[in-house]
Amino acid sequence: MKLKIGFIGSGNVARHLARALNTFGHEIVQVISRTESNAKSLADEFNCGFSNQVHEIDASVELCIVSVSDDQIAEVVSKMPNSDRIVVHTCGSQAMDLLRNVGSNYGILYPLQSFSKDRTPDISTVPFLLEASNPETLIVLHKIASSLSHFVLQADSNTRLKYHLSAVLVNNFVNYLYSEAESFLNDNELDFNVLKPIIKETAFKIQNHSPKTSQTGPAKRGDQVTIQKHLSLLESDKHLAKLYTLLTKAIEGRHH
Amino acid sequence: MKLKIGFIGSGNVARHLARALNTFGHEIVQVISRTESNAKSLADEFNCGFSNQVHEIDASVELCIVSVSDDQIAEVVSKMPNSDRIVVHTCGSQAMDLLRNVGSNYGILYPLQSFSKDRTPDISTVPFLLEASNPETLIVLHKIASSLSHFVLQADSNTRLKYHLSAVLVNNFVNYLYSEAESFLNDNELDFNVLKPIIKETAFKIQNHSPKTSQTGPAKRGDQVTIQKHLSLLESDKHLAKLYTLLTKAIEGRHH
Repeated sequence: MKLKIGFIGSGNVARHLARALNTFGHEIVQVISRTESNAKSLADEFNCGFSNQVHEIDASVELCIVSVSDDQIAEVVSKMPNSDRIVVHTCGSQAMDLLRNVGSNYGILYPLQSFSKDRTPDISTVPFLLEASNPETLIVLHKIASSLSHFVLQADSNTRLKYHLSAVLVNNFVNYLYSEAESFLNDNELDFNVLKPIIKETAFKIQNHSPKTSQTGPAKRGDQVTIQKHLSLLESDKHLAKLYTLLTKAIEGRHH
Repeated sequence: MKLKIGFIGSGNVARHLARALNTFGHEIVQVISRTESNAKSLADEFNCGFSNQVHEIDASVELCIVSVSDDQIAEVVSKMPNSDRIVVHTCGSQAMDLLRNVGSNYGILYPLQSFSKDRTPDISTVPFLLEASNPETLIVLHKIASSLSHFVLQADSNTRLKYHLSAVLVNNFVNYLYSEAESFLNDNELDFNVLKPIIKETAFKIQNHSPKTSQTGPAKRGDQVTIQKHLSLLESDKHLAKLYTLLTKAIEGRHH
């Protein structure tokens, strides 16, 4: 099954999805973005049309992928002409119901991955969470997602939100801890590169081991001597000292 | 420079260091562990002697690597005969001074990595932090560490403690977030495997990008709608709800 696909949005998710869909034989026929130059930039990769107006969506578009920031989906949808085409959004936290006024065929194509401008994801390993307004649409979305990835699952809006919350823990919160460590080392004129191997190993280890059984460290051991040594280093960084204490207590709360 | 090396301790750090040192041509001559069967198990890999008594350390040992848990180092050291051999420990949080009674040649060989029983680390990328009681000992430790790894640096005890603290943030605390996500998904009969690709990508991304500039998510955006949706999922998990709120506030505190 090859579809004519239009994108609304031209950010990292749209860009990487469009490239992958194009690679696997689908036809990208239009890119719409409120900033015309961004629409053109992505459209140029596929020699396709572009626009900065949602209502100019091309009649040939069989699948419209709305990949804009969470809080813009409702506005985009309000401007879309009602039609029979399939309309999906790619967001983890927004209910499918948001799309109910675009027609009868709509759904969700949520790639649970962090996409960056200059990193090409291995799309075949990206989990795609699907939801659809009817069984026929679900079948189409399943075929599309399966043409990209080996990891496709069906999830209703509430389940998707649970995965999204979990992703916040292991992506946003984890990255925040990386950034606190980076700031602390920079403030002390030390080298964040020293941490990169252990960061990689920590993420690798849980690919085959439960993180619960992998937990180590002073908080897990209840090693107050080391905890106090660490806190003594943080006397001039109240923010990090507080964060350290809270996470230490959280770990102690789970493990003791 | 090839040395005759003895280990006190037979845990993951000792095991992986001993294997790597043996691979690179050093001779493991003895393993001492308070549990004799553990000492024998590691010693058997190298056809060398073993003991469960620290005072039985062999006279031929030129470099003694004390790789026991943090709180056992002092006890081990108290039982060691005073000698001219080099004695090091491998721990991030304990000052070098702890070794001052073993003789005049002592120091630190701290591999900043998380070692697991069943995962073979790429020792060549492991950062080794060195400290020594005198320049001659430092030169020897530098040669030893450089024979294993491309990433060797000198760090006094206070600097080493700063790196150790940072490692707690990016290893222990991060793993704890992984485990909270795993528990949350398990409690909801959902699949932790769905998170594994984004966990890997999050750790990979910062290998070449500052985590500070990579920060995304509802807390960074100040997206209270999504934050409230997430908290509504956590009504029956007060522990995780509290953790979520604290980390969200911490990110908001840094970014707004």
